[in-house]
Amino acid sequence: MKIEQQDIEFMKKALREAKIAEQEGEIPVGAIITCQGKIVARAHNQTERLNDVTAHAEILAITAACNKLGGKYLTDCTIYVTMEPCVMCAGALAWAQIGKIVYGASDPKRGFARIPTPILHPKTLVISGVLSDECSEIVKNFFTNKR
Amino acid sequence: MKIEQQDIEFMKKALREAKIAEQEGEIPVGAIITCQGKIVARAHNQTERLNDVTAHAEILAITAACNKLGGKYLTDCTIYVTMEPCVMCAGALAWAQIGKIVYGASDPKRGFARIPTPILHPKTLVISGVLSDECSEIVKNFFTNKR
Repeated sequence: MKIEQQDIEFMKKALREAKIAEQEGEIPVGAIITCQGKIVARAHNQTERLNDVTAHAEILAITAACNKLGGKYLTDCTIYVTMEPCVMCAGALAWAQIGKIVYGASDPKRGFARIPTPILHPKTLVISGVLSDECSEIVKNFFTNKR
Repeated sequence: MKIEQQDIEFMKKALREAKIAEQEGEIPVGAIITCQGKIVARAHNQTERLNDVTAHAEILAITAACNKLGGKYLTDCTIYVTMEPCVMCAGALAWAQIGKIVYGASDPKRGFARIPTPILHPKTLVISGVLSDECSEIVKNFFTNKR
């Protein structure tokens, strides 16, 4: 699938979430969930604040979107996330039957794409590499500044 | 690793959690997390009540154990869970660096063990098949009664 202008606009909003995470001392990953072109959830990584390894941006965004929409499934939704989802988050997105995943930077070490077995729901579409430079840069800078 | 009497005792407690889930109309899966032989978290599947696909017993137990222990990592802990963890939960247990996973019934369709790539933390020990008949029976009965 090709990248559309709308994908770039929503990824910019996910990047804004990543920047909030950065300001809070969290690994800067942000996510947005949209439904019919409208944002239904915004979230950023909160593993430090919540002292909880499961508090990734995607997990928090899924929970928020389900609360907002009143349903457990997100078949008509798209998640925009600045980093490639990890295995945990890909598993969660599979359970949610998310319609589309758009991610920015790849994560060859922790990302789900390295797993040869299909993890996602068979109907989920995936687009990668949207604003990947900005999305990876913010994480690289975070770790450089930590040293 | 061989199954010890303690594993059976704690799995019985995880089964009690599964029975609470059953009474609440949830897919009956329960989990217990122990640390130095003491229970630090009990949880059961709450996907229906919370309207949230991420509210698996394991995820709720990890969050509860971290709250209780005040740390993000569960390296000295064991999780007892009635069903083989799914990919999402295995990913979460990996992030938590859980010391040991003891599970009851296998889940060839949704479980993490079908994935050829290592998902868990390399130091995590795994024991399977503890009270597997009881653990699978409760789920089978749940779906039979649903029909």
